[in-house]
Amino acid sequence: MRDSAGTASPARGTVSDLGEHALLARLRALAPPPPPWVIVGIGDDAAVLEPPRNQLDVVTTDALVEHVHFDRRFSSPADVGHKALAVNLSDLAAMGAEPRAALLSLALPDTLLVAEFDALVQAFLAAAASQRVALVGGNLSRSPGPLVVDVTAVGAVRRRRVLGRAGARPGDALYLSGTVGAAAAGLGWLRAHAGAEAPREPVPPIVERYRRPSPRVRLGVIVGRNRAAAACVDLSDGLADAARQIAGASGTGAVLDAAAIPVDAGAREWYQGQGLDPLEAALAGGEDYELLFAVPRRRRRGFLAAARLARDTRVTCIGAVTEGPTVALRRNGREEALPAGFAHFADRR
Amino acid sequence: MRDSAGTASPARGTVSDLGEHALLARLRALAPPPPPWVIVGIGDDAAVLEPPRNQLDVVTTDALVEHVHFDRRFSSPADVGHKALAVNLSDLAAMGAEPRAALLSLALPDTLLVAEFDALVQAFLAAAASQRVALVGGNLSRSPGPLVVDVTAVGAVRRRRVLGRAGARPGDALYLSGTVGAAAAGLGWLRAHAGAEAPREPVPPIVERYRRPSPRVRLGVIVGRNRAAAACVDLSDGLADAARQIAGASGTGAVLDAAAIPVDAGAREWYQGQGLDPLEAALAGGEDYELLFAVPRRRRRGFLAAARLARDTRVTCIGAVTEGPTVALRRNGREEALPAGFAHFADRR
Repeated sequence: MRDSAGTASPARGTVSDLGEHALLARLRALAPPPPPWVIVGIGDDAAVLEPPRNQLDVVTTDALVEHVHFDRRFSSPADVGHKALAVNLSDLAAMGAEPRAALLSLALPDTLLVAEFDALVQAFLAAAASQRVALVGGNLSRSPGPLVVDVTAVGAVRRRRVLGRAGARPGDALYLSGTVGAAAAGLGWLRAHAGAEAPREPVPPIVERYRRPSPRVRLGVIVGRNRAAAACVDLSDGLADAARQIAGASGTGAVLDAAAIPVDAGAREWYQGQGLDPLEAALAGGEDYELLFAVPRRRRRGFLAAARLARDTRVTCIGAVTEGPTVALRRNGREEALPAGFAHFADRR
Repeated sequence: MRDSAGTASPARGTVSDLGEHALLARLRALAPPPPPWVIVGIGDDAAVLEPPRNQLDVVTTDALVEHVHFDRRFSSPADVGHKALAVNLSDLAAMGAEPRAALLSLALPDTLLVAEFDALVQAFLAAAASQRVALVGGNLSRSPGPLVVDVTAVGAVRRRRVLGRAGARPGDALYLSGTVGAAAAGLGWLRAHAGAEAPREPVPPIVERYRRPSPRVRLGVIVGRNRAAAACVDLSDGLADAARQIAGASGTGAVLDAAAIPVDAGAREWYQGQGLDPLEAALAGGEDYELLFAVPRRRRRGFLAAARLARDTRVTCIGAVTEGPTVALRRNGREEALPAGFAHFADRR
């Protein structure tokens, strides 16, 4: 990020009234002092970080694009700031990596209010602080259309503790963190209540799960540290997609046990009210940001101990890795094809 | 980047016809095999990289947003792919860092042709290969508006060889790589020739300087390695801005010598034809992606030797760091204020 001699002005007007230098000054004023391993932070051409000794660097990038990944009728700027970091930390967690630093690249519509910019940045920084992630740089530019929040997250992991997605073997158990279906149900609830009037009902917890996902950072790190799983992916594109990703990368199949899949109670209620099968909706719905692990038989005890230690969320055995190549759902004693996964790219919200 | 079991299909139709999985498969088919220090590359939740021994990580991100940073009437998808990497490598070069890896995050309009996607990715990969940069991950999403190309570049530098922008001291000489003014003049030429008809004149070299900047990677790395400069910035936002950035970060002033500033010959001709002062236009024009160094007197000989060794471009002494705080232009024996820098954020192309 570029340096600026400007000082933060009051939160009035739009970002285009202020301009890049003043916005950067605001951002720098909001960011806490960096930890000592940040040799050069915000304000130079690039950030310089001291890598932790004997660890590997883990890097990922993921963007939230307005009208594709979020709608400002349904998510506040603060929700978007929180989620943009969360989805990247979820990717690090799925590798067993401890998050360290983030870069924030924003493309801002001219009409965005300075107060909205502040709220987005503050929520991003609050989420970062809660996971001990340092904002070390980024980029601000105008957008002629959507608000785009592109985040790069940097983490660290020891070589023998990387949780790839390709390590699953037939016979491994599939364990899922938390519950599924809530985020997609929350978005469904918001769409159903999108009207000229503000919704009269109180916003249910499924909406919070959609707006403010909690990446399973501790769980991923502790499972990786204890080498308690053979493979892991996150559920950004849904459980059905996650099972396919592990199977595809590992050259195996998978079978999920319908009766074991923990569908969120609020999501179940929402889908039933809509006349939909809660399980099918939960399998296909994206954005739960839970983790799916493949756990060899001899590591199950260690995996469950690690999961308890993480105190992040419960884990549930929901199926097994098979010889393949099919990825199936076992329901009422029969195997059927998994529903198609959630695809951001094809989704036209 | 997500894994995909799909295979590359012929370059027909639009990106929305193909969808994310098929586009990722195309991208993976185009990317060369990664070097051995890429432990996990494209296709998992995050990339895992082995850091070079005893070096620091350097990370930067910079986006090109359609209608803000480029116009598809003036730059081809291949130009955009090349430039998106170049502007990030320029930031690494300004820190003295050797580039290693890049992440590519694309927000793609539905109407973008698959052939355009391929051309963008191929030019990005060609620029990466020429600088020995490995594409290790990224993200694809739809865009409801502009094409957005957001790149994160990762490099490495030894601790004592970091070229920050804050190290300048009064008395240091200011050295500039290459020439200034060409990129902004090239954009001016394109705008002047933007019409329904294709321009009849051949495209002059200033247009190539605008479309395909060459980041000064070797120069930055070799100057850093020889500790031959006290501070450095790149000229993404123009020479006037760069001088202000070094002075502002270092708590100094600066004076540039008008007669010494090497304005590109083609740019000079273009600006004179437009009735503009070439020097003022070159000072304010952005996107030259040259480097500005502050060089202490006792290091000048070493700096010039390092610059010769880099065989990247010539360097010119164009002024000096002063006690400050003013940043001025000395012209015809008088000092005057520098023109305002180039600001992407305020620029409405």
